[in-house]
Amino acid sequence: MKTDNALLNRNCVNALRFLAVDAVEKAGSGHPGTPMGAATMAYVLWDRFLEHNPANPAWPDRDRFVLSPGHASALLYALLHLTGYDLPLEELKNLRQWGSRTPGHPERGHTPGVEMTTGPLGQGFAHGVGMAVAERWLAEHYNRPGHEIVDHYTYAIVSDGDLQEGVTAEAASLAGTLKLGKLVYLYDDNDIQLASATEPGFSEKAARLFVDYGWQVIGPVDGFDADAVDAAIREARADAERPSLIVCKTVIGYGSPQQATSKAHGEPLGEEGARAAKRALGWPEDPAFYVPDEVLSHTRQAAARGREYEVGWEERLNAYEGAHPEEAARFLAETNGELLAGWDAGLDGLFANNGTDVATRNASGEALNALVGRLHGLTGGSADLDPSTKTTITGYGDFGWGEYCGHNMHFGVREHAMGAIAGGMALHGGVIPYTATFLTFSDYMRPPMRLAALMGLRVVYIFTHDSIGLGEDGPTHQPIEHLMNLRAVPNLTVIRPADATEAAESWRAALLNTTGPTVLVLSRQKLAVLDRSVYPPAEGLHRGGYVLWESATAPEVILLGTGSETHLALEAGKQLAAEGVAVRVVSLPSWELFDKQPADYREGVLPLAVRARVAVEAGITLGWEHYVGLDGAVVGMTGFGASAPAEELYEKFGITPERVVEAARDQVLVRPPGSPDQSLVQGMNKEE
Amino acid sequence: MKTDNALLNRNCVNALRFLAVDAVEKAGSGHPGTPMGAATMAYVLWDRFLEHNPANPAWPDRDRFVLSPGHASALLYALLHLTGYDLPLEELKNLRQWGSRTPGHPERGHTPGVEMTTGPLGQGFAHGVGMAVAERWLAEHYNRPGHEIVDHYTYAIVSDGDLQEGVTAEAASLAGTLKLGKLVYLYDDNDIQLASATEPGFSEKAARLFVDYGWQVIGPVDGFDADAVDAAIREARADAERPSLIVCKTVIGYGSPQQATSKAHGEPLGEEGARAAKRALGWPEDPAFYVPDEVLSHTRQAAARGREYEVGWEERLNAYEGAHPEEAARFLAETNGELLAGWDAGLDGLFANNGTDVATRNASGEALNALVGRLHGLTGGSADLDPSTKTTITGYGDFGWGEYCGHNMHFGVREHAMGAIAGGMALHGGVIPYTATFLTFSDYMRPPMRLAALMGLRVVYIFTHDSIGLGEDGPTHQPIEHLMNLRAVPNLTVIRPADATEAAESWRAALLNTTGPTVLVLSRQKLAVLDRSVYPPAEGLHRGGYVLWESATAPEVILLGTGSETHLALEAGKQLAAEGVAVRVVSLPSWELFDKQPADYREGVLPLAVRARVAVEAGITLGWEHYVGLDGAVVGMTGFGASAPAEELYEKFGITPERVVEAARDQVLVRPPGSPDQSLVQGMNKEE
Repeated sequence: MKTDNALLNRNCVNALRFLAVDAVEKAGSGHPGTPMGAATMAYVLWDRFLEHNPANPAWPDRDRFVLSPGHASALLYALLHLTGYDLPLEELKNLRQWGSRTPGHPERGHTPGVEMTTGPLGQGFAHGVGMAVAERWLAEHYNRPGHEIVDHYTYAIVSDGDLQEGVTAEAASLAGTLKLGKLVYLYDDNDIQLASATEPGFSEKAARLFVDYGWQVIGPVDGFDADAVDAAIREARADAERPSLIVCKTVIGYGSPQQATSKAHGEPLGEEGARAAKRALGWPEDPAFYVPDEVLSHTRQAAARGREYEVGWEERLNAYEGAHPEEAARFLAETNGELLAGWDAGLDGLFANNGTDVATRNASGEALNALVGRLHGLTGGSADLDPSTKTTITGYGDFGWGEYCGHNMHFGVREHAMGAIAGGMALHGGVIPYTATFLTFSDYMRPPMRLAALMGLRVVYIFTHDSIGLGEDGPTHQPIEHLMNLRAVPNLTVIRPADATEAAESWRAALLNTTGPTVLVLSRQKLAVLDRSVYPPAEGLHRGGYVLWESATAPEVILLGTGSETHLALEAGKQLAAEGVAVRVVSLPSWELFDKQPADYREGVLPLAVRARVAVEAGITLGWEHYVGLDGAVVGMTGFGASAPAEELYEKFGITPERVVEAARDQVLVRPPGSPDQSLVQGMNKEE
Repeated sequence: MKTDNALLNRNCVNALRFLAVDAVEKAGSGHPGTPMGAATMAYVLWDRFLEHNPANPAWPDRDRFVLSPGHASALLYALLHLTGYDLPLEELKNLRQWGSRTPGHPERGHTPGVEMTTGPLGQGFAHGVGMAVAERWLAEHYNRPGHEIVDHYTYAIVSDGDLQEGVTAEAASLAGTLKLGKLVYLYDDNDIQLASATEPGFSEKAARLFVDYGWQVIGPVDGFDADAVDAAIREARADAERPSLIVCKTVIGYGSPQQATSKAHGEPLGEEGARAAKRALGWPEDPAFYVPDEVLSHTRQAAARGREYEVGWEERLNAYEGAHPEEAARFLAETNGELLAGWDAGLDGLFANNGTDVATRNASGEALNALVGRLHGLTGGSADLDPSTKTTITGYGDFGWGEYCGHNMHFGVREHAMGAIAGGMALHGGVIPYTATFLTFSDYMRPPMRLAALMGLRVVYIFTHDSIGLGEDGPTHQPIEHLMNLRAVPNLTVIRPADATEAAESWRAALLNTTGPTVLVLSRQKLAVLDRSVYPPAEGLHRGGYVLWESATAPEVILLGTGSETHLALEAGKQLAAEGVAVRVVSLPSWELFDKQPADYREGVLPLAVRARVAVEAGITLGWEHYVGLDGAVVGMTGFGASAPAEELYEKFGITPERVVEAARDQVLVRPPGSPDQSLVQGMNKEE
């Protein structure tokens, strides 16, 4: 029996291996080396441990599996195909082709069973930590004695490259501190990278580092020995206190003439190479994409097991519903990403106009605290900046510092892991994660933000200290290019509210955005609260831009502002009006939301015939031509900021109502639209 | 005597401490806590070890000092003032004010003696590694038996926050692997961060991690015991094989009522708090900014020592010049950042038009290899992508893998540290560093790129695989927003050459740019080499944009392209011309260079009166309105890419000559310029 099993195992592993090899071969490009080396560990994990249901990839309590080296996608596709996901063999034959479900790197939402889009190294590792955080948090919130409705593992395969990335160090350190015992990672330790061999001693160093991080490090085990891998995974799961890293010694491109070299990493083996590998491992050279019947009938048992897992869970859920109906309803709704009725009731009337100025960071903090009572899944934190970003949820505890139901997460100064963990939490579902730091430090967390946009995750990124308005901390802390940088990311909604009332609406917009992440860009400095009995309601924010104020007659000139500078536009507008200029002031908190409006709405706000336009924003001017064109003007920054009190900086860099007025006057009074001799009005460079 | 010395030491330390406290107090904002805790270690280092010359902060062989927690700037300013740099007490009284030499965070080039702009955590740590790399490399290249003209240490003070950042993990791991023994870092281990106490056990964990990284970890020592710190620094310097981390136990805000709390981190102590601290530490409460004569006369001895250091070095240099005149001349020129005569000779005629298509990444690789023979300081590498980025310098060895004079650096998959190390190398001087990865992974290294732009460093960032043109690797690897994101960074010059000849000129432009970093954006796919006997010379690149081709008559429509899409613009232009449309095709490889040209040159290339314009670039369309305004069209991307062969992607996303022709025709034939009903022509979204 043992021999039969061993043979079956070997055949299953080889089927995985050579499906990947053949797929890459047929595609003419791709990465065969990692699938060939990692097939055994993947097979053991999927065959003996992973509790998933190929018929329902979205079953909430499934184990999560992340392939962090996404370039090994063909391995994942082979696993999905063999275990019975809706991924026919034909799809593997279309690897890396337009319209296939088998893109070059795994893409969530594109291929059933792919939990996460991977490829940029380190991200799979760190997002997995976020999944385990969500699992722990939900288990703590919803499980009751005798009722375990949230109870699953998060597995990943990780590579040398993953372990070199800084985001991995950050996430690993946090995972150890947080004692995420249900995190089990298999490290494909093959000593080879794209360009060359790994640094001498790298994997031994990595193993020691993970011990320091507070992980259980198991191995090295022989990554081709199924029983050794099996025993290691059992050992990993048995430790409830520590996440586990299983070091599996493997050989990249195992069996091929290129094995154990960088050549095997990122190009097809070539027909001869593929045949040689098959011969070396005792696999029929023909046909390509060969799957023996006994392999398929074995691996497809995953379907029956999957049904059992899910049915078992449904029985537990039914019992839970009987005992705790309210929690069960909430759990299911939030797992589905639904917002419970009345979820935003707390926002209304939060900022009755009482003449007190409020920084939008403070307004955001108040909104967050008002929302959490009805939005139980709202959980997040900052990279050691809670007091500055105003993101503490008062009275809701701290996650992982002694308790696991706290809503406040403490990431330390680890912006990159913060972004990735938030992404992993959103991928897991059941929670709505938020992160916070200064806008300038968004630079530290661009990769996970991009992935969230690509995957369409509901994550709320809070960035405060959004301009030179932060003052004395100077140019390292003053964002310049960041707003425009974020606007340029597809499917990322950027909102920079003008005042407290728009800030509250921003939160509403962010939570209603279920198909992508939202960035809230908030001021450090206090801002007047716009009196909504005088100005149109802040709900206009949901259209991205709206007319805030205008003269009685059709506008000759349009002033556009965002965030704190909306107030400068307004002041300039009133001054121009007093001078007899017909002016319109537009509050434009979100370009993405505005550009999504129907053409007639946009034309209503920004009539194309009115070319005299002045935009004012304390960020880089580049990009504003999107709204002001070649004839308009932008009052903003063209260089880095400086260290001084905020008011003085606005003065020195020329971001003032006076400059807006000048720029407007210049267009309306002097120049017919379209005439060729105007240059943009811009903020002074520091160098000037 | 011991007592006198102890008293003097104490007074010197307290002078540092309270200059910082009083400066923050007067500024009304700032960070007193770290200066109060770290004053002793800073004093011991500067008084007993740091070989610097306050009269000549640029002396090449000085020890480098980096204050990685830049928010403790007041401590650095106090050090600079007391040791006699050109930083009068008046400047400390103007901390964080407009025009002062004492900005909120230290700024290189702004304050004499500040080696590096710090503030974003982890960057000081990682840039220091780059300084030590440059020192080691130059020592290996230039020192000769009996002639040590490069021989100095790199010191830094680093904080808890620095050690949490992923870039630190990356850089520390590399520094250990590279055995940078002359790196000596003092870790201000005070258990307190901005928001709260550091995670329990954090500093002990950090100490273990650094042992694993291959560092010598010394301590913990009492950070208030000057002799203990002294002994630790001696021990650190004695180990030539390992970088050293000295763990100094300190108390944030030492002596103040707020000591050992986050309250002491980032706000003034308040008048009462400051007085209480002075009383607690035996310091006169008045006057503020008090510096006893004996303190100043002691600390100002740094001037005499500094002269001696520099004179000693000059004597060594003279002897070296006698023995090795050629090397000496080269050393001095390259240390001054000069390019030796004939440095770019290798570029000429590199791409004689022979009908062979060349990817610009390959052209860049050939240019790099042609240049290095005369540009001895050119050294760099990739984040494990040498074969793909074509950045290996053939025959010039590998740095740190057994030898230290190799030009090829191997960063591993550590983009962030790669960027920071390159910045540190440029800060050090004597070398011209370059880095390389795929354009999409520029996201991993934004913080050091921004700092390089802010500091005005000559670093060359090579980013290949610059669009959907990379094909099958799919949306995780296909940059969309990145080009525009980089263009939005002040003082960062972005160049995307159209062909091999422009690629060679890009290298020339990058090396001639001595006041800031340059980004080279290069194609994976092969591109035709433009026949310069037909088209104007590629030198036009140095003006950022130039007319590549046009009809005989004044243009009705202008087509603009960059990089690979320049060829699409050209094809479209020729088709339009054949249809009788008067057309101009502009190659626009660098917006920054173009926008710096005189107005008449820009008007000559892009006459403002010609509003029919079509830009084509396989990146995000947002931002192109800078050149095409509200009336023109942009053929580009509006969403993420997809996995498929490159040609198919261009077709599917509508980035084709046909679309350019349509968009041009649409403007020229149908519509008078300025009429209101045109929307931008854009690439299809994947969702569409």
